[in-house]
Amino acid sequence: MFLVHRRVEFRDTDAAGIVHFSAFFPMMESAEHEALRSLGVSVMQPIGGGGHLTWPRVASHCDYLAAARFEDMLSIAVSIQKIGVTSVTYGFDFSRAEIKIARGSITAVCCLWMPGEPLRKTEIPGPLRARMQALAVDNTPS
Amino acid sequence: MFLVHRRVEFRDTDAAGIVHFSAFFPMMESAEHEALRSLGVSVMQPIGGGGHLTWPRVASHCDYLAAARFEDMLSIAVSIQKIGVTSVTYGFDFSRAEIKIARGSITAVCCLWMPGEPLRKTEIPGPLRARMQALAVDNTPS
Amino acid sequence: MFLVHRRVEFRDTDAAGIVHFSAFFPMMESAEHEALRSLGVSVMQPIGGGGHLTWPRVASHCDYLAAARFEDMLSIAVSIQKIGVTSVTYGFDFSRAEIKIARGSITAVCCLWMPGEPLRKTEIPGPLRARMQALAVDNTPS
Amino acid sequence: MFLVHRRVEFRDTDAAGIVHFSAFFPMMESAEHEALRSLGVSVMQPIGGGGHLTWPRVASHCDYLAAARFEDMLSIAVSIQKIGVTSVTYGFDFSRAEIKIARGSITAVCCLWMPGEPLRKTEIPGPLRARMQALAVDNTPS
Repeated sequence: MFLVHRRVEFRDTDAAGIVHFSAFFPMMESAEHEALRSLGVSVMQPIGGGGHLTWPRVASHCDYLAAARFEDMLSIAVSIQKIGVTSVTYGFDFSRAEIKIARGSITAVCCLWMPGEPLRKTEIPGPLRARMQALAVDNTPS
Repeated sequence: MFLVHRRVEFRDTDAAGIVHFSAFFPMMESAEHEALRSLGVSVMQPIGGGGHLTWPRVASHCDYLAAARFEDMLSIAVSIQKIGVTSVTYGFDFSRAEIKIARGSITAVCCLWMPGEPLRKTEIPGPLRARMQALAVDNTPS
Repeated sequence: MFLVHRRVEFRDTDAAGIVHFSAFFPMMESAEHEALRSLGVSVMQPIGGGGHLTWPRVASHCDYLAAARFEDMLSIAVSIQKIGVTSVTYGFDFSRAEIKIARGSITAVCCLWMPGEPLRKTEIPGPLRARMQALAVDNTPS
Repeated sequence: MFLVHRRVEFRDTDAAGIVHFSAFFPMMESAEHEALRSLGVSVMQPIGGGGHLTWPRVASHCDYLAAARFEDMLSIAVSIQKIGVTSVTYGFDFSRAEIKIARGSITAVCCLWMPGEPLRKTEIPGPLRARMQALAVDNTPS
């Protein structure tokens, strides 16, 4: 589990006066990237030959529990809910003080990007998987 | 079922060269609003006393099946998958020509907005529900 | 001059209840692209060798004259204010019915994109320039 | 002058692989708000009677000097270029290390927002103006 703090910006809001439901998804992605950076992992891990790993998304979802507003300071708890051979599912818990705001997920697939070639699904490399385990939910000290 | 056509704009794309996964959600919402307008229904239906109905979202999701790119012309089929006493779930099928691009949903709750009062969940008014039935999946002529 | 019609979407608004000032810029860009398509010109004109033209922006501005709101139907008049050897400045006039909403501009530079090479500024090709003249302000029939 | 640091997020980029030109405007606004918070000033200063000040934008511009990319750490120097009786113009200098990335501005007008009333332009209150002077360019110690 990795904790990100983020203040709601004005552009995240809409004419209903609250954070737009779609604005939670870029926040999840930024929290994912920050969590990976904290592990020394780049989202675009180079793999030789001018190529790199890339993680296209296959699914995302969000449940909205309470409204968030301009300038709210949100906490986003990032965890890995499931890590398979080629894919990973991140979970995100948004809260403000003790109030649960939203709960979302993103599932991404590990792919090989080589210049001039189509994307190819690939196994998550062992050393990378090992580092990502630090975010696994069942890895949180109890 | 209601069909919307929409061309991918440059701002919808990201540095991976494809439509960003989060950009599908505002497209869903616009398709929802366009479907409601086609029924003569306003998303902010006035209800007297200076108030109006409003539809905060409680859940959204999207499955990504194939990449969409700048200037692609997408078709978005909007339907109502479920309409309860106070809530409605819309389904959205994105395609380009014969290729399925994405499949998503938004669940919204019918609320009463009155000036200076907190939002209050309310039953979907009968006449409104009747019109929305036109979008119900089991209402599509077979 | 080329005229684009566009309905304000909910995601374009902010908690002040109006279209966010930054949301006018993607609208300008989409109108630019639609104007170019109307001339049979691609924004990413292929130029052989796997390369294409690309138009990075060097300046943009917008003056806000009146607020626009959710579901407003806007007209955007696109024109070319100035076309130089390597750069072009587009003008955009936003209005709703008879009300002037905003007036903006984007200046872009014609560059050569070749795979694996840095961008290189280049002259706007003659045939392309000839077609773009159709949008020039001094070309509007009087 | 007030300095903000901000990492480029993936959603800020576009299919040209760089930060989209429109994405600089929400960054300017967030930097403005952060600068005001640093002075103990709220963007929505309460003024009694349930009302508050609000700052609709009348103009914005940006000059683009060099491309910014995903995960770049940007510095944004916020200053007040001009403060009039009812309006203020902020300047923003974006840089990455020693490289100048962009230079922009936002001009906003001080207005009174009272529930149920149209916006009314008003003089910037003296105490507020006094605090904002801390950001004035000619106030930077030399």
